[in-house]
Amino acid sequence: MIAPAGDDARWMAAAVAIGERGRGVTAPNPAVGCVIVRDGCVIGRGWTQPGGRPHAEAVALAQAGSVADATVFVTLEPCAHDSARGPACADLLVAAGPARVVVALVDPDERTAGRGIARLREAGIVVYVGCGAAGATASLAGFLMRQRAGRPHVTLKLATSLDGRIALADGSSRWITGDRSRAHAHLERARCDMILVGGGTLRIDAPRLDVRIDGLADRSPRRAVLTRGAVPAGWERVAAPEAVAGLDGVDSLLVEGGAGAAAAFLRAGLVDRLLLYRAPILIGDGQAALGDIGLGALDDAHGRWRLAGARMLGSDRLEVYERA
Amino acid sequence: MIAPAGDDARWMAAAVAIGERGRGVTAPNPAVGCVIVRDGCVIGRGWTQPGGRPHAEAVALAQAGSVADATVFVTLEPCAHDSARGPACADLLVAAGPARVVVALVDPDERTAGRGIARLREAGIVVYVGCGAAGATASLAGFLMRQRAGRPHVTLKLATSLDGRIALADGSSRWITGDRSRAHAHLERARCDMILVGGGTLRIDAPRLDVRIDGLADRSPRRAVLTRGAVPAGWERVAAPEAVAGLDGVDSLLVEGGAGAAAAFLRAGLVDRLLLYRAPILIGDGQAALGDIGLGALDDAHGRWRLAGARMLGSDRLEVYERA
Repeated sequence: MIAPAGDDARWMAAAVAIGERGRGVTAPNPAVGCVIVRDGCVIGRGWTQPGGRPHAEAVALAQAGSVADATVFVTLEPCAHDSARGPACADLLVAAGPARVVVALVDPDERTAGRGIARLREAGIVVYVGCGAAGATASLAGFLMRQRAGRPHVTLKLATSLDGRIALADGSSRWITGDRSRAHAHLERARCDMILVGGGTLRIDAPRLDVRIDGLADRSPRRAVLTRGAVPAGWERVAAPEAVAGLDGVDSLLVEGGAGAAAAFLRAGLVDRLLLYRAPILIGDGQAALGDIGLGALDDAHGRWRLAGARMLGSDRLEVYERA
Repeated sequence: MIAPAGDDARWMAAAVAIGERGRGVTAPNPAVGCVIVRDGCVIGRGWTQPGGRPHAEAVALAQAGSVADATVFVTLEPCAHDSARGPACADLLVAAGPARVVVALVDPDERTAGRGIARLREAGIVVYVGCGAAGATASLAGFLMRQRAGRPHVTLKLATSLDGRIALADGSSRWITGDRSRAHAHLERARCDMILVGGGTLRIDAPRLDVRIDGLADRSPRRAVLTRGAVPAGWERVAAPEAVAGLDGVDSLLVEGGAGAAAAFLRAGLVDRLLLYRAPILIGDGQAALGDIGLGALDDAHGRWRLAGARMLGSDRLEVYERA
């Protein structure tokens, strides 16, 4: 029996959620999620494993055993290219023979780019494409940006007071936001491939930039500093925002400040997403969140950002903006 | 028949809404609202008229005619003191003889202070007190602050970018927020007794501070400037934040900036409510929303403000904070 199409969105959402588990440890491979459903029950699920292999479909198929009459939900088109590290997922699926495959996004990787879907259809498998595309696009943002623009997807995190300050005039910034905001920010760290701060922040705050959440400590990403100078051991050097395009294995970058580094990425047009944590406090005189972002006139500031989500974190509010 | 008590909150909310019509034109009298209900139908409604008389109850009673078996909902205890401008509302109500009177708040004015309620009860009228107190407290904030603290209730308005800027470095600030935010801010103007700006804002922006909403142009409040110097015709001088206590007929004050005036009121502990309009834009280098508010340490900034409400205004977001 083929799973009713009315539930497709729900199952794809589950596949996206499963795929999230690989975020931050699969680049340059995408963190794909896969759920296999028969008679309304999940019989297999998988996500791209650390380092990029096995792929999500391979994991889910191994778990499911027989997939006769089942539907496979996968957040990205199954790959069509063989690799020394494993067979093409499209071939695995053809061999397994599910009734139907539902795909959220066509793989922009030119080695696949529709060939995976074509191979499934040639084998007589019903393939639906586009279900849950918005969720999958958000989850795979790093991979998609690298494929389409040849650079990482960049998130800028700001943690400010209501009046946009990130520190008092004397530099003290512990703490503006509360425990729950900081825990959420650590989870965002775990989801990216590299965290970057400015040279001043490194010198003054000496941030660890690790993931201080139980069970996720091994997800602490690579650390970089925006500087033309020398960097300490354990840190990588990024000479200019544009240089992030050349960072191997970095498809998602989190810029954590300070004001100069944040402004440099904005000035370069290289911020795709804003994470704005705001505490219900006023600071007054203090350090601004951003330096010069190259804005010439107020009109040019409008229409650039779209509110993509918001939630309370204790008494703080998180807003997520995406490039409009 | 007495209106069912289960609907009391709903009728009192209507009385609060009616009372709002007098906001900004009744000081030093409170902008009270009154609704008279019989058999589930409104038979009279009134609000404090411009200049403070007639009172809401007198208007509503005149409209209702007979109030036998009716319930009177009023946002503030009916006054117990005669005046050259009219009889005490408690006496009017006793003479009219409704079955029941529901009062949101006891009048803190020492000439009434419970005597109005006592007089109704002595006449055999059932009186309930406290229904809808939160809404009435917000609506009557100016009157209550004047009664309790001998000064106006002060609202500080800030219109900022996401990064807390109120203007570009060159001073340009038209426009950061959109049409709907600005219309809402004009409505807030109409609700207060006086608007205040700093001396620098007056010199540089020459704001009109009027209410540019059709039908409300005559609600433009008195205008003041925070300065020790001379002020132009049509403006009043406020030498220091503490001086607002001495302003006759000003129970609600709206501080509209700039950064110096806003900070002066915060430093003096004289801001009761924040109106924070935020546009989804980034400015970077520019003018900060606030100057020195006298904050010594970050710990002292926390716990001072409570989110009292929020709404979207087009793509802007309005947040209202009240003193915690």
